[in-house]
Amino acid sequence: MTPEEFRRLGHQVVDWVADYRERVAALPVMSQVSPGAIKAQLPASPPSAAEDFQAIMADLDRVILPGLSHWQHPRFFGYFPSNGELASVLGDYLSTGLGVLGLSWQSSPALTEVEEVTTDWMRQMVGLSESWSGVIQDTASSCTLVALLCARERASGFSLVHGGLQGEAAPLVVYVSAHSHSSVEKAALLAGFGRDNIRVIGTDGIHAMRADLLEAAIRADLASGRRPCAVVATSGTTTTTAFDPLQAIAAIAREHGVWMHVDAAMAGSAMILPECRALWHGVEGADSLVMNPHKWLGVAFDCSLYYVRDPEHLVRVMSTNPSYLQSGVDGRVKNLRDWGIPLGRRFRALKLWCLIREQGVEGLQRRLRRDLENARWLEAQVGGEPDWRVLAPVALQTLCLRHEPPGLEGEALDRHTLEWAGRVNASGAAYVTPAVLDGRWMVRVSVGSLTTEREHVVALWELLRTEAAAG
Amino acid sequence: MTPEEFRRLGHQVVDWVADYRERVAALPVMSQVSPGAIKAQLPASPPSAAEDFQAIMADLDRVILPGLSHWQHPRFFGYFPSNGELASVLGDYLSTGLGVLGLSWQSSPALTEVEEVTTDWMRQMVGLSESWSGVIQDTASSCTLVALLCARERASGFSLVHGGLQGEAAPLVVYVSAHSHSSVEKAALLAGFGRDNIRVIGTDGIHAMRADLLEAAIRADLASGRRPCAVVATSGTTTTTAFDPLQAIAAIAREHGVWMHVDAAMAGSAMILPECRALWHGVEGADSLVMNPHKWLGVAFDCSLYYVRDPEHLVRVMSTNPSYLQSGVDGRVKNLRDWGIPLGRRFRALKLWCLIREQGVEGLQRRLRRDLENARWLEAQVGGEPDWRVLAPVALQTLCLRHEPPGLEGEALDRHTLEWAGRVNASGAAYVTPAVLDGRWMVRVSVGSLTTEREHVVALWELLRTEAAAG
Repeated sequence: MTPEEFRRLGHQVVDWVADYRERVAALPVMSQVSPGAIKAQLPASPPSAAEDFQAIMADLDRVILPGLSHWQHPRFFGYFPSNGELASVLGDYLSTGLGVLGLSWQSSPALTEVEEVTTDWMRQMVGLSESWSGVIQDTASSCTLVALLCARERASGFSLVHGGLQGEAAPLVVYVSAHSHSSVEKAALLAGFGRDNIRVIGTDGIHAMRADLLEAAIRADLASGRRPCAVVATSGTTTTTAFDPLQAIAAIAREHGVWMHVDAAMAGSAMILPECRALWHGVEGADSLVMNPHKWLGVAFDCSLYYVRDPEHLVRVMSTNPSYLQSGVDGRVKNLRDWGIPLGRRFRALKLWCLIREQGVEGLQRRLRRDLENARWLEAQVGGEPDWRVLAPVALQTLCLRHEPPGLEGEALDRHTLEWAGRVNASGAAYVTPAVLDGRWMVRVSVGSLTTEREHVVALWELLRTEAAAG
Repeated sequence: MTPEEFRRLGHQVVDWVADYRERVAALPVMSQVSPGAIKAQLPASPPSAAEDFQAIMADLDRVILPGLSHWQHPRFFGYFPSNGELASVLGDYLSTGLGVLGLSWQSSPALTEVEEVTTDWMRQMVGLSESWSGVIQDTASSCTLVALLCARERASGFSLVHGGLQGEAAPLVVYVSAHSHSSVEKAALLAGFGRDNIRVIGTDGIHAMRADLLEAAIRADLASGRRPCAVVATSGTTTTTAFDPLQAIAAIAREHGVWMHVDAAMAGSAMILPECRALWHGVEGADSLVMNPHKWLGVAFDCSLYYVRDPEHLVRVMSTNPSYLQSGVDGRVKNLRDWGIPLGRRFRALKLWCLIREQGVEGLQRRLRRDLENARWLEAQVGGEPDWRVLAPVALQTLCLRHEPPGLEGEALDRHTLEWAGRVNASGAAYVTPAVLDGRWMVRVSVGSLTTEREHVVALWELLRTEAAAG
């Protein structure tokens, strides 16, 4: 495709996306297709000859669109938001169009330096001290894996340059909670710790890790000859946005030389609001931290920020230095390939840069406060209605709720919950996420899509009551 | 940013990218900036108030552009190409604009199914049998890490559900070659094997792994009570695009129950040309394979394809299944989060889909053949010139060459090489990569940027001779 064709077709693509964002509210939020339905409409073999780009655009409307659940929909209340604010989308367009790669500082200096600047902007925005250094990675899953690898290498005295984890005598142990994200256990398993060496610490009445049980578990492991290695604390759990007590956990981690990683994937964005920062009091005691501006804040996916207090340790664990990647300035620059797993790196900082500048910190704060108020409004409605219950504190913008008609309990209640939630999603009018809390199904309502205004939350509440009553 | 503003500014961004692609040939290929120069031009703190998008566009020209090395430049001969063909760029624009996420099949069915279809198209295009299943990941670094994790778990009988790698009695061993990519050793170290358990197998005169030495190393490890676990064979090494003998390696791997992973990151794309497939004869004997359509083929970075013969094993190693990610159709669909490390996944298949359709397989083949011919032309020129030497077989499109004036040897020759290569890169007229081969610096010329025509290779050859003579 020539630049001239790209200019013409690119305008068409931009218009299509603009139209999509304008009309998305009129589409069913959750895709209604059956498994295999999309695949069945696509040729089983690739085309030998070139096709006209218009054929692709036609298939986009005909085949692809019905197969999408719309994350940018104003009545998307599922999972956590994945907001692609349009200024950030343009930043990503610039990055893809430029097509530069950050294998090393020299391979595109601005890629590295804008990343340094914007991750430091974010550090300031969420109120972290100057002792943190940041880097952009793809997802929290990857960041947490990197964190546990760094913990493993600190605790083992750099076993990787010797016998690896298989050369270790006493097992290293990782501490998580039952409400840690699934990616945390996955990271611990992939890092080689083994499930026998993952301790799932109990939580309190509001689903936050109990520091006293953490301390007890560490002491028990020490007593049995194991080596406590890492604790993952969560600021804003996935199910209920519970906040683990970072201050208390940090004190225990420090006492026992345990690496402390904070998973603030969702709630990190909230910390641009000074009034939220008490929720992660103690975060400065951690060794590493992940937050995802590609969730609530609005950076087009993917943009996960990983912060560490000791970048030299990170680099020592992750670095490679083959001759074809060396350059004369290596001693004076950051080579961000040594800050994560992938060698190749997109210019992801551009989309963060565009978002922060075009919105301004105040604009971002205003939107997040809007969402917090909408969540509180919904909490008040649900709490004021007989037969409805808010099941966990609404710390931010996620509500856990259940319709509990008299006489319905146990598995019958589970069935009722899954049925009405299914009806809500099948209606196409809103998208919510059923999940298990304390052994029972409930419904998560995550407020915070870009275009979600009060009216959409009002409509959701009406829909929830209608579908729950329709059983 | 509203959709209307996005429409207007999006056109501007598309025009900027179209202009960039048109004028990039006139820019210095390698950025000329000093460390810190970009950072110094950017505010140290984020803006409180919103800025006009035009201020960002102005900084793009003023600050960012001089800080880039231009990978889409017709005289970019560095590393390996990272081609962002413009049809693929548009596919990525659609993906970012849609902003949908593939946490599970249900969270956007088309995302998963188009990925199944396009990875299968690529399988057919490179001539792999139907027994392979593919998935899109970010980079070969990540794919190779996943491969070694799967190897580890197969050899250890799923140690991750027990004591992990630290519960293993006899060490597991990984086999690589001195010409394996740096990401291979990194992956083995991160997976916990430890450097003591990585065997670097010697290579032959053309830098390919010696199967007889692999066999001997495996037998030696078995004799000393270690357990051979995985071998990574390379189809197209980074330094010289050497091809390891897959057939022989596969036979050894099969005999000893060793996992065989093929790193075809660069050369996988070449296999869309039937005449190249003899180079990876034996690939069907492997357990896993990675190829990067984001290199030569032209898919906008990042798009790395990971193929496995046993997807159930992959899923068993990588799967997580928290309640909030479950859906009623899980038994009948692929949940690609269980095919890699990240939970969140972009709609990356769109850019692969757009590239293949808009170019057609024949169009892609034509371009790659052009590059092969250009590389052969340059090989003939260098080979015909006294004092110049082609140091390794030109299997594909990468040349390893050196200017060897009479009387210059050893470190003096190294200095000469690094000096003239430095002058080439500093001139801005072309970008090449110095690297070490057999203990001596040489210069890699990687032909294969999208817009590189014969005239650019002619100009490069002229430049190389000029700068080498200028010392």
